[in-house]
Amino acid sequence: MIPKEWNRPTDFKIEEGKRRIKLVLAYDGSNFSGWQRQQEVRTVQQELEESCEKLFKEQITVFGSGRTDAKVHAFGQVAHFDTKNHSIPPSSIAIALNPMLPKDIKIISSSLVNENFHARFTSLSREYRYYVKQRDDVSPFDYHKVGIVKKFPSIELLNKYAKIVIGIHDFKTFASAHDQSKSTIRDIFNSEFYFQPSNYGGELLVYKVAANAFLMHQVRSMVGTMLQLGEKNRTPEEFRKILESKKRVEALRTADPWGLYLYRIEHANF
Amino acid sequence: MIPKEWNRPTDFKIEEGKRRIKLVLAYDGSNFSGWQRQQEVRTVQQELEESCEKLFKEQITVFGSGRTDAKVHAFGQVAHFDTKNHSIPPSSIAIALNPMLPKDIKIISSSLVNENFHARFTSLSREYRYYVKQRDDVSPFDYHKVGIVKKFPSIELLNKYAKIVIGIHDFKTFASAHDQSKSTIRDIFNSEFYFQPSNYGGELLVYKVAANAFLMHQVRSMVGTMLQLGEKNRTPEEFRKILESKKRVEALRTADPWGLYLYRIEHANF
Repeated sequence: MIPKEWNRPTDFKIEEGKRRIKLVLAYDGSNFSGWQRQQEVRTVQQELEESCEKLFKEQITVFGSGRTDAKVHAFGQVAHFDTKNHSIPPSSIAIALNPMLPKDIKIISSSLVNENFHARFTSLSREYRYYVKQRDDVSPFDYHKVGIVKKFPSIELLNKYAKIVIGIHDFKTFASAHDQSKSTIRDIFNSEFYFQPSNYGGELLVYKVAANAFLMHQVRSMVGTMLQLGEKNRTPEEFRKILESKKRVEALRTADPWGLYLYRIEHANF
Repeated sequence: MIPKEWNRPTDFKIEEGKRRIKLVLAYDGSNFSGWQRQQEVRTVQQELEESCEKLFKEQITVFGSGRTDAKVHAFGQVAHFDTKNHSIPPSSIAIALNPMLPKDIKIISSSLVNENFHARFTSLSREYRYYVKQRDDVSPFDYHKVGIVKKFPSIELLNKYAKIVIGIHDFKTFASAHDQSKSTIRDIFNSEFYFQPSNYGGELLVYKVAANAFLMHQVRSMVGTMLQLGEKNRTPEEFRKILESKKRVEALRTADPWGLYLYRIEHANF
């Protein structure tokens, strides 16, 4: 069942004289046009590369574990880059970079990794969280930080939908038409809704989902569809049919990007 | 013991043909120079008055229950104004005002009150919260939303300090030199520290304090002093001596404004 497209490149050689640095970082996506460097807009990759180049005085390419969309946030994005510089201890690079970065990016940690590490290709698990609040509970502190619904659907019902996606499935229904993956099969490890008190009033409904990888817009499409079905009190069977249709047109709402947080990335042995 | 300066004006007449509207509102103080209207800087009062004037097409003065400092936030500030307009139902004024207001202010509710109500002079209780995080747990989402310490002091010790301020005391030690109150005596109803999970990683240490009213900078001076004493593991007796000294120079650190939230104001019968 494991699609052969899951095979990944394994050659991530480090140029002689360089060393590889892994970064774990958080960012508030509100004022970014996403992760990936693009012409004439502000992106996380661009800000990171500019700060690294200022610090190391050489050209730096930063590789991310995944491309977050415009407005999507991160608690624990993982990235790596190679540098000729050997003077700063690896764990101090975070401390050196933070003052050079804008306030909406923070490096949580930096460490030395070897050539078997690649932020994107050797990641084993990616975890996202999606935050939802009820309209009446939304405060100015929640602006572009949560998805909004009029009223929370039954959490028992939402968790019945959530359970259906766990395991290896073809998620074509929930992939953006722009997704360029060779296979739309993914392995979801965990998928659940729970409540958490909000620090800014009312309750946060949190959707937590982890997989080997996600298709473009997959999390937003799944959570938007589940919330919309839940509002209408539809059966879990209906959600299953949508998943199994493998037709993009069957998916319902795509949830707003600003409720989504890239929470954690796991790599083997790092 | 009740100081005669606590006597308050009681004449809040409404001009004939007008009605009085109470507002409960939240704001993110990050981009405000505080509540009170001033020349050439952005304030909450000014934004509110401008939006009310646009909506009601008349000159409006908005009275707040208290003047929050620059960068201080509010979950539940209370304000009132008088208007000639009788066409919008009182509870719908919030709905009408919100789209005219910037994203960092939200009216939570609006209601009709009578001439016995004055946002400032008839308030019985004001409650603040102060949010603190440990430096290593701070994320980009916490920027200008929490006070920061290197490491949390013992919460048991902090609560021993916190208990000392409960009741009627002269809080001169913790009042800004610019405070213009006739009396520095205030009645603290509640004062406690507790932990709450942060929605953005780690724990929030929350200081909750309610009083009949507060002196200028009082909450920030009290919480800053308690945190600093706690870091040094000083006895509750030492905090008591500082309070009882009634000397401003005895107070320690004044905590940063951006950790402070005006949480709730209670008025009699409203």
